[in-house]
This record gives sequence, C-alpha cells and structure tokens, in this order.
Amino acid sequence: MSGVILDCDTGIDDALAIAYAAGAGVPLTACTVVHGNVPVDLGSRNTVTVLDAVGLDGVPVYRGASRPMAQELMTAEHVHGQDGLGDAGIEPSARAVAGDLAAVRIVELARAHPGELSIVAVGPLTNIALALLLEPRLPELVDQVVIMGGAVGAVGNASETGEANIWHDPEAAQVVIDAPWDVVFVGLEATMRTPLTQEQLARIERSEDPRAQLCWRVLQHYLDVYENVLGERSCVLHDPLALVLAVEPGLATYRTVRAFVELGRGGTRGMLVGDLRGFRPDPEDPRAPGVIRIVDTLDTVAFHDRFLAAIGA
Amino acid sequence: MSGVILDCDTGIDDALAIAYAAGAGVPLTACTVVHGNVPVDLGSRNTVTVLDAVGLDGVPVYRGASRPMAQELMTAEHVHGQDGLGDAGIEPSARAVAGDLAAVRIVELARAHPGELSIVAVGPLTNIALALLLEPRLPELVDQVVIMGGAVGAVGNASETGEANIWHDPEAAQVVIDAPWDVVFVGLEATMRTPLTQEQLARIERSEDPRAQLCWRVLQHYLDVYENVLGERSCVLHDPLALVLAVEPGLATYRTVRAFVELGRGGTRGMLVGDLRGFRPDPEDPRAPGVIRIVDTLDTVAFHDRFLAAIGA
Repeated sequence: MSGVILDCDTGIDDALAIAYAAGAGVPLTACTVVHGNVPVDLGSRNTVTVLDAVGLDGVPVYRGASRPMAQELMTAEHVHGQDGLGDAGIEPSARAVAGDLAAVRIVELARAHPGELSIVAVGPLTNIALALLLEPRLPELVDQVVIMGGAVGAVGNASETGEANIWHDPEAAQVVIDAPWDVVFVGLEATMRTPLTQEQLARIERSEDPRAQLCWRVLQHYLDVYENVLGERSCVLHDPLALVLAVEPGLATYRTVRAFVELGRGGTRGMLVGDLRGFRPDPEDPRAPGVIRIVDTLDTVAFHDRFLAAIGA
Repeated sequence: MSGVILDCDTGIDDALAIAYAAGAGVPLTACTVVHGNVPVDLGSRNTVTVLDAVGLDGVPVYRGASRPMAQELMTAEHVHGQDGLGDAGIEPSARAVAGDLAAVRIVELARAHPGELSIVAVGPLTNIALALLLEPRLPELVDQVVIMGGAVGAVGNASETGEANIWHDPEAAQVVIDAPWDVVFVGLEATMRTPLTQEQLARIERSEDPRAQLCWRVLQHYLDVYENVLGERSCVLHDPLALVLAVEPGLATYRTVRAFVELGRGGTRGMLVGDLRGFRPDPEDPRAPGVIRIVDTLDTVAFHDRFLAAIGA
C-alpha cells in the first residue's frame, strides 16, 4: 500500500485508528476532516493533536465539509465528549492545519498518484461525495476504498436502524454507493464483534507506550458510554477496524450485495440497506453502481492482535 | 380461550393455519378476510374452501377491506399461486360468505363478548385498523391480539427490510401499534426459525388425514418458492406460528420494545422497526402506545409437534 488518505471526524475511535496507524507504519498521505462526531473545526484540531501525540507530526491535515449535503448538522458529543477526545484534558496541538477544501485535496492527491492511494473514510461521507461530484473519474484514480459505516442486518446506533456515519449524511453515502468502484463498508454488523476483553483493556492501561497511554486516556469516556450497550465496561473498535482491514484485507471475508441508503424523511432515514434476502444470487461485480461489499467473516483475534501490538499494549 | 377471530388473506400458510385450527380444536368464532396474498374476493373464497375442506363448515367468513389505507393494492401470487392455494387444483367451495364489512363484524363480535375474544391477524392489518378507527374502545373489548407481521432485527421478504403483511399496509400497522393494547407481533425473526425437516415433510406427505393431505397439496408451490431462500426444498410456517402462539403463548418468551412502521416513501417503506439498541431499558408496559411485544426465544420443537399433530401428520 503506497499511501492512505484517512478521512475522519476525530473522535475517540478516530484517535484510536490514528494511534494504530502510527504504530503499524501505515503510510498516511494526509488526513482530511469532516463534520460528524464533532464540528469540523474541532475535529480538525483533534486530528492534528492526535497525529502529533503519536509521532505523526509530518502528516498534513485538511479541513473539509462543515455540514451534511441535505440536512442540518448533528454531532455526537454525548458519545465522544465535549472536546471530542473524551474530555480527558488532552492538550491541543498548536500545529496549523495544512489547508481547507479537503474534497479538492482528495482529488488532487488522487490525480497526482493515479491508481495508488487508498481512501479510508471513518466519518460521514460528505468529503468523499464532494470529491466524486468534483471528479467523476475518482473511482479510476484510487486503489481501494474502505468505509466505516452502516449496520447491514444489524442494530443501529444513531437511530434504531441508522449507523452514525451514514445517518449524519445519507445523501453523501448514496453518492458513494452509486459510484463505479469497489467499496467496502465496514459496518456495525462487523465492528460490534470487537469488544475488548478486560485483560486487553488492562494491557492498554499498564502500557508505558505513549500511543497506548493516549488511547487509555481518551477511552475512559467511551467505556462509560458503551457499558450500557455491552453490559460490561468495555468498548468496540469501529474506526480502527476499517483502517486495519484496509491494511490487511485478508483478516475478513466479504459479501457483495445490492445496497441503498434510505433518504426518506421517516424514522429510518439514514439506514444503509443491503439486500440479504437470497431470493436471487448476490451480484458478481462489486464495481457496479448500487453494489457494495460488506464484511462476512472476521478474524477478531488477529484484529485485536494487530491493533494492540501497534499501540504498544 | 373462548373465541378467536382469525383475520386472514388465504394464502398457502393461512390454509395451514386453518388446518391447524381444525385439528387443535381452536374455537374459531369467525374468519375475517383482507386483501394481501391475493385480492379479497379470492381470499374470501379460499377461506371458505379451506374451512370446509377441514371440517369447519360452520365458521362464518366475512369479506373485508379490498385495498390498503394509503397505497395501491399489491398481491403476492408469485408466492401463493394464481389461485392463492398453490395452483394445486383445490376445488372451490360453493358456500357463500356470511357477509362483508369485516371490520364492523370485528367490532360487533368484540362488543357482544367483551374481554373474551382473541384477534389473530395473519394478513395486512387493514381490517384491524378500520375496527380500531370505528371503535377506539376495541382494546378494552378484546382478550389478546397476536399478529403475524414484521421482521424486527431480521431480513425482510416483500422488500429488503419489509415483511409482507406490514409492507402491504404500513399505515394500518401503525394504527395497530399506536392502540393501547398488548399486541404480539410474530415476525420473520421468529417464523424463519421454523423450517420443516425432510422427515417432517415426509410425514405430511404420507398421512391419510384429510387435513394433512390438503396441506401437502397446497404446500408444493410454497416449497418451490422457499427452496431458493432456504437452500433446500422446505418451508417455514409463518401464519401457523402466530395462531399456535395465540393458543399456547408459553411456547415462546417475549421482549417488549418501542416500535414504529416506516411510512416514508423510500425503499424501507413498510419496515417494522423495533428499538433493539439497549441504550435505555425496554419499556415495561406493553399496552403503551408505540410499544409491542416480539418473540424472543421460541420452542420450535414443541411448535412443530403441535402443528403436525393437529394436521394429522
């Protein structure tokens, strides 16, 4: 893998993904930032802060879309804390963002390195959709696209049926699905399989690695939030899973399905729907518009190994 | 149980439910018929035909709503055959229906036997919604309500997310959910757990009981349809499960959940959504508007035993 654009809305689990990237040597070409977990200005600041804290102070950060395409801005401080990093007192970095117009940077980088870059998107898909609308040839210009988003055949989180990243900009997600590329959506049907054990959490807590120590600090708020859902004080690793699968796709198997996003204004708006009925065979070409890949089986043991090793726990 | 109103759209699995009722001695007060699997005139004729074939020629049949409340009529001959009974050459009964205005009959029967009757609805909910709109006190007048419908946390059939009975009249289903009664929705999340084994199918085929023989004839088309879904020539028992659980509620355990039907005009229209997220406790009172019960655990062995014994297989 020759370069990764990480499109993020940092965010506790975005921070965990960046910590993994640092330890695993993921070649981050740039981080582009979008509204989502927090407003985009705060998310951009957090992205710089976390990159710098884990030794990635050379990775440029570009500020992107500040609102969804067709609805009002909604953020998730109740999940990520008022500062987006778990209100753990993480000192903001003073490094300036490298620029704005993140969608334009995505297009420029893809044009400069045709066929080489991976896009890993772990926030709402506004920046990616804008890049596709600016440059319809984007699918030919990138190597792979992996997205944390959706809950196909699984329970939602932002709503009964909606996963937060899709729910925060449903129209953008539909643009991404309609583009003629092979896109993998790593949704709650996969990420909810990754709760950390108490032993793994203890390893993070005990580690003296600065990456693990940063993770442990930002995790506390997340553990509080997920205790109600998981029945014990633990959490799952949404954004890290998408990034790890971009680096090592072989840790999962995939199913190719017809899909759409509910764009109506009812209670299921923002639901990523995959056709799991089996009345007809699954489509063969994941590049077909309206077709995506989702995770089928997942090697959670290997995933946890990769993540914990990379953060030094 | 002192009396059951079976609201149906007969239909292959409606026929199986009626055969079960005959063998199990379920006290059918009346059958009311609604559009759904087939148009209501054909469904009414089929209901009379099946009742007469299994020895229930004393049960009156009332023809009900011929179309949904807020969308055009859609039927499912591809599942149930052009004649609704699997195109198996079942001879129609000559017995006349007892009347029309099924929703009015439901109100009249409930008023005549306050607190005594069970409503078991195994078709779209138009008749039940009309009865509630005619008589808002209906919830006080009936004993229990069991519905075959929905796919809460499960894959749909009529659409990716929609189960046929809800999808055929979403607005009617929402009226039923909003009524202040304890209503159990037996959906695909439960009924898809009931595929018949090859040995059980062979017992139906070999039986000389006229109920089993009727079932075997109408089942052939259904087995063809379900082979694609189940991977073998078998089928599940949607409508019989709802009726059996009305008779023996103890064969399942239930979960009380907040629920709504997607009424928007997007691709998830007609989805029955239950809040399975666990962020807050499930509601305690199943009678609260917007609250339903769904099946949690199910004793499929006992269910199959009851069904097969009743049809003489």
